[in-house]
Amino acid sequence: MQLSIKRADLARAVTAVGRAVEARNTVPVLSMLRLSADGDCLTLRGTDLDVEVTASAAASVHAAGETCVNAKLLADIAKKAGNDDVSLTLEGDQLIVKSGRSRFSLATLPASDFPDLTAGTYNATFDIDLAALFAPVQFAISTEETRYYLNGIFFKGEFDKTIAVATDGHRLSRHHVAASAEFAGIIVPRKIVGLLPKGSVTVSVSDSKIRVEAGDLVIVSKLIDGTFPDYNRVIPTANDKIITVDRDEIMKAADRVSTISSERGRAVRFSIAPGAISLSVNNPESGSASDEIAAEYGGEPLDIGFNSQYIRDLFSVVPAGPVKLALLDGGAPGVITSAGFDGWTGVLMPMRV
Amino acid sequence: MQLSIKRADLARAVTAVGRAVEARNTVPVLSMLRLSADGDCLTLRGTDLDVEVTASAAASVHAAGETCVNAKLLADIAKKAGNDDVSLTLEGDQLIVKSGRSRFSLATLPASDFPDLTAGTYNATFDIDLAALFAPVQFAISTEETRYYLNGIFFKGEFDKTIAVATDGHRLSRHHVAASAEFAGIIVPRKIVGLLPKGSVTVSVSDSKIRVEAGDLVIVSKLIDGTFPDYNRVIPTANDKIITVDRDEIMKAADRVSTISSERGRAVRFSIAPGAISLSVNNPESGSASDEIAAEYGGEPLDIGFNSQYIRDLFSVVPAGPVKLALLDGGAPGVITSAGFDGWTGVLMPMRV
Repeated sequence: MQLSIKRADLARAVTAVGRAVEARNTVPVLSMLRLSADGDCLTLRGTDLDVEVTASAAASVHAAGETCVNAKLLADIAKKAGNDDVSLTLEGDQLIVKSGRSRFSLATLPASDFPDLTAGTYNATFDIDLAALFAPVQFAISTEETRYYLNGIFFKGEFDKTIAVATDGHRLSRHHVAASAEFAGIIVPRKIVGLLPKGSVTVSVSDSKIRVEAGDLVIVSKLIDGTFPDYNRVIPTANDKIITVDRDEIMKAADRVSTISSERGRAVRFSIAPGAISLSVNNPESGSASDEIAAEYGGEPLDIGFNSQYIRDLFSVVPAGPVKLALLDGGAPGVITSAGFDGWTGVLMPMRV
Repeated sequence: MQLSIKRADLARAVTAVGRAVEARNTVPVLSMLRLSADGDCLTLRGTDLDVEVTASAAASVHAAGETCVNAKLLADIAKKAGNDDVSLTLEGDQLIVKSGRSRFSLATLPASDFPDLTAGTYNATFDIDLAALFAPVQFAISTEETRYYLNGIFFKGEFDKTIAVATDGHRLSRHHVAASAEFAGIIVPRKIVGLLPKGSVTVSVSDSKIRVEAGDLVIVSKLIDGTFPDYNRVIPTANDKIITVDRDEIMKAADRVSTISSERGRAVRFSIAPGAISLSVNNPESGSASDEIAAEYGGEPLDIGFNSQYIRDLFSVVPAGPVKLALLDGGAPGVITSAGFDGWTGVLMPMRV
């Protein structure tokens, strides 16, 4: 293998695929990238055995070939190189990287040692702005490893819409956009969400994998093998106490009163009355706080507790302006929607206050 | 105690004194600030028992008084308050803080519980830009707790210059400016260095304390009670091999080759010959790297090893342009000076390579 490549092209491709590579690995080849030079192209691949990212970059290939080399070293070299051109030459089991007067000799492993997740067929292929669909639900993904089936985004193609849902049992976020293709619900792991490029991508799904392609970038990920809860049963439909508040006002007031919260207990009491919501926090150790905001509401007074951090997460998703909060009583989940953000619904479990 | 104060004034003073307060404390009063209202002024004080910072701000004092209240809570409230005016009222053992429609009731302790470091007399008082004197030596302060006498900056007023020195045994940085006052050498702890305001301050020193005053800010710190090593004996004077290199070139080349270094061994071999320095790193695990930079040198070839991180720290202190490295042989410390930075000397111990 011998090639020369622009430093910026190498750096961009190495950064893209390096994001799949875990920082610490017990299996040496998993801390490496697979390099493959052919035609006028260098193709790089990184994986953690669950997600695999492939990217390619234009290169002057003098001798085709392939090898594996440490991802972090190659990324650092591409970042720091003092010259615009970088040459890569495989000499025996060493990859020689040259740029200007710098010369690096890097340990390699054979390309055949590198795992391959790509094989397999897909049930459906369609174009969609997946990053935009997932963005408003991502925050609600659970981090509890024992509930592994909540550690990702539920993604389903219905006949009239394409849906994304995430929940950790304390809050739920559901977002849908126009229909793309019909496919059975799958659970897409958290890691892939951070790797998605912005804008429209080509998505292929099977029972066990998702593949995302955008230009010269290909991401393949295993799916979470589990059963996502029936989220439609979790979203209340009979909440008849409708309160309209300004997004920024409620977020700021909740943030202010939670100053006094302890690190464990983040509960804020919302006392809802016609025209206003009073927010209050009591912390036996440090003191108490109260605040008040205007609200559009004509029903019976009602007290309910919510976690201030969850309030912030959920309201961060909707655009500034009026937000609708639908409640039943102090013990039932609240439903949040925004006229300015069609297709999105948030659900928040109450806390005892 | 009752007063009203501008939110921005309160936030500025609380931030300044809060930097003395440690995040975790077993003694409750040490996580608090002492507030004292009198005349047209609110004075705040924070301490960790070693350093004490006092600041004051203009306020409309309706009733003089004093109390202690949690530093972090007061800082958060001042930062988040929705209104430009904040009122503080002591009601029994609670401090009531109001701003707009927000109301906080905070636990307090009596002001008499707050420790006082201020008492004592000083041997010398003078004006100096202490932050500028300390800045180029600060990086060399040791973090090894067993060598407590190196955990600060040696500060001495000689008849012809005022000197600051720091060392961790691996590198040493000495800086002097024009004479201010004559005083015996003291060791100023690391923490105070980060608290110093920029520009000229009024400094008072005694055998056990340093006091720094700038406008309405007063910092008092205990000194490190120990004997600083005789740094003049550590700085070689017979190094006759003089190499001149460009600061940016040597820093960048050292950074590039150290890409390949392991996390523990940061040694870079500098092979110095007339006209050029070759830099190289060998890491049995990951490979090797070499680079070359131009150097002005006419003596015998010489090999020496230096820690790449220490090279970066020391050369970061001098301005861009030519830097002078004076060596004796591969086993003796190197001396770094810059014609563009009069009054500064760096010393770097060699490493076996």
